[in-house]
Amino acid sequence: MGEPRAGASAPLAILCGGGAFPLEVAGEARSAGREPFLVGVVGATDAAIEAYPHVWVRMGEVGKLFAALKGRAIAEMVIIGAMTRPEFTDLRLDWGAVKRAVGLAQLFRRGDNGLLAGLAAIFEREGVRIVGAHEIAPRLLAPVGPVGTRAPSAEDEADIALGARLIEALSRFDAGQGAVVAAGRVVAVEAAEGTDAMLARVAEMRLSGRLRFAGLAGVLVKAPKRGQDLRLDMPAIGPKTIEGAAKAKLKGAAVVAGQVLILERARCAREADAAGLFVTGFAGASAAGG
Amino acid sequence: MGEPRAGASAPLAILCGGGAFPLEVAGEARSAGREPFLVGVVGATDAAIEAYPHVWVRMGEVGKLFAALKGRAIAEMVIIGAMTRPEFTDLRLDWGAVKRAVGLAQLFRRGDNGLLAGLAAIFEREGVRIVGAHEIAPRLLAPVGPVGTRAPSAEDEADIALGARLIEALSRFDAGQGAVVAAGRVVAVEAAEGTDAMLARVAEMRLSGRLRFAGLAGVLVKAPKRGQDLRLDMPAIGPKTIEGAAKAKLKGAAVVAGQVLILERARCAREADAAGLFVTGFAGASAAGG
Repeated sequence: MGEPRAGASAPLAILCGGGAFPLEVAGEARSAGREPFLVGVVGATDAAIEAYPHVWVRMGEVGKLFAALKGRAIAEMVIIGAMTRPEFTDLRLDWGAVKRAVGLAQLFRRGDNGLLAGLAAIFEREGVRIVGAHEIAPRLLAPVGPVGTRAPSAEDEADIALGARLIEALSRFDAGQGAVVAAGRVVAVEAAEGTDAMLARVAEMRLSGRLRFAGLAGVLVKAPKRGQDLRLDMPAIGPKTIEGAAKAKLKGAAVVAGQVLILERARCAREADAAGLFVTGFAGASAAGG
Repeated sequence: MGEPRAGASAPLAILCGGGAFPLEVAGEARSAGREPFLVGVVGATDAAIEAYPHVWVRMGEVGKLFAALKGRAIAEMVIIGAMTRPEFTDLRLDWGAVKRAVGLAQLFRRGDNGLLAGLAAIFEREGVRIVGAHEIAPRLLAPVGPVGTRAPSAEDEADIALGARLIEALSRFDAGQGAVVAAGRVVAVEAAEGTDAMLARVAEMRLSGRLRFAGLAGVLVKAPKRGQDLRLDMPAIGPKTIEGAAKAKLKGAAVVAGQVLILERARCAREADAAGLFVTGFAGASAAGG
C-alpha cells in the first residue's frame, strides 16, 4: 500500500454514477495528467468505464471501496453522475460498512444534501478528500456567453434575470435549482421533480393550451442554490436538457457561468442550433459556496 | 331600465365560470336576501344555473351582457368559477364589444392578473362594481382551525409555516399560490400548472420512488399571492383538491383562513376524513390585499 498523495499529478478516483458524464470527467483528468481510477457502482454505472483502470462495487461495499483507494494511495475522489438515492436497508453492507454502520444509518435519516455532506465527511475521515468535478475538469463549466450560434435577446435577458432572482429567493428554502420564465411570467418552478420533469410539464402545458405562447417562448434558467456544496451536487445540463427544452418550445437555456456543468458541450451546441435554441452562461450575482 | 342600485338587498349578478362553485355563491346570496341574476358563458358554465334567473352569453358578447345587467338595474357583479383564458381572436365580438374593442385587445396582451384587472375596470366604467365572492358568501371562506375531524401535528404545523413563508417569498414574482412540503422539505412548487397538476406530480413521484416517504407524508399549503386582487382571483380548494391530496398520500391540506375559499365544505370534510387527511385554516401573517 502506498502513501496517499494529493496534488496536480496525484492519483484520482472518480466514483461514477450513471450517464456519460463520469467518462467526460475522466477524459479531462487524463488530459491534465492525472490518471483516473474509476469506481463503478453495480446497477448504476455505464460499463464504458472499463476503458480506464477501475473497480466495481455494490451499494454498501464501503470496505471494498476504501481498500481499493488505499491500495492505490488515492487521497482525492470526485463523485459524479446520476445516482438514485438507495434506502439504507437496500445496501449490501460489507465488513467495512458494518464498522461504520451506526454513522451510515444516521445519515440516511437526513435530506439529500445532508446525506451527501455526511458521506463526504466519512471519506474525509478516512483520508480521502472529495473534490468537485469542476476542480478537475474546469473546461466542463458553463462559460460566460453563448454555447452554439444563438444568443438571448434583450427580452430573454430580462427573463433570465427574473429566473435567477427567483432561484436566489428560493435558496433559503433549499428548493429549486431551476425555473422556466416566459415573457416576464414564471411558468414553472423546479423542486423535487428535477429539470427534465419540469420541462416535460411545460411541454404538456403548451400542448394542452394551458400555456398559450406563439412559437418559441420562454427560457430555462438554472443556478445552484446559495450555499449548495458544489463538490457534491453541482447543477448540470446536457443533451437531454436541450431535448426537453426543444420539446417545451423554449427559446433557450441559461445557466450560471462557472457554477453549472455542461455535459457533452459540443453535442449540446449542435442540437441547440438544430432546434433553434440558445444555450448561454450568465454571470451570477455571487459565488454559491463550495 | 331601472336605476342601478347597490347594497344589502340590491340585485346582484354572478358571472359564472365552470364547476359547482357559482351555484354555491348564488345559494349564499339568496340566503342573505340578495336575489342573484346568473350570467352563463356558453361552453364554460354548468346548465344548472338555469335554476336561477339567468342569461347565456358567448365569450365576446359584451353588449348583450351589459344590456342584461342594465335592464335589471344591476350595479354589482361577482366573477367566480373556472374559466379558460380565451384568445382575443377567439372572441365573438358583438357591437357592444366592438365599441370597446381597442381597450379589449390591449388587455389581451397582459398577463392573467392584468387581464382580469382590466376587465374589472371596464365593468366599473360602465357602473358595475366587481365584488369578491367572499364578500357575498363569507361562509365559504376557510375558517381558522380544522374542517373535518383531523388536525395537523406539531411537525405538520412546521411544514405549513415553511410552505407559507415560501409562498410569501414567491409573491413578488407573481408566481405560486401553492406548495407541497414534507418533513421540512419543499417537494413541489406550483406555478402555471395549477394545484391539481402539482398534486398529480407529487403522487407520481411517490409511485416512482423519486420521493420516498413511508405512509402519509407532506402538506399542501395554499395562500394568495401578496397583492393579489381577491375579488378577481381568490385561491380555492374543493373536493377535487382533497382527492388529489389523497392520491399524493399527503397528511393534509392547509389554507390561509379568511383568504381561501373552500368549495363544498361538508363534502371536503367527509372525504378528507375518509382518506385520513386533515384540512385546516391557518392564520396568515398579513392580509393579502384586495
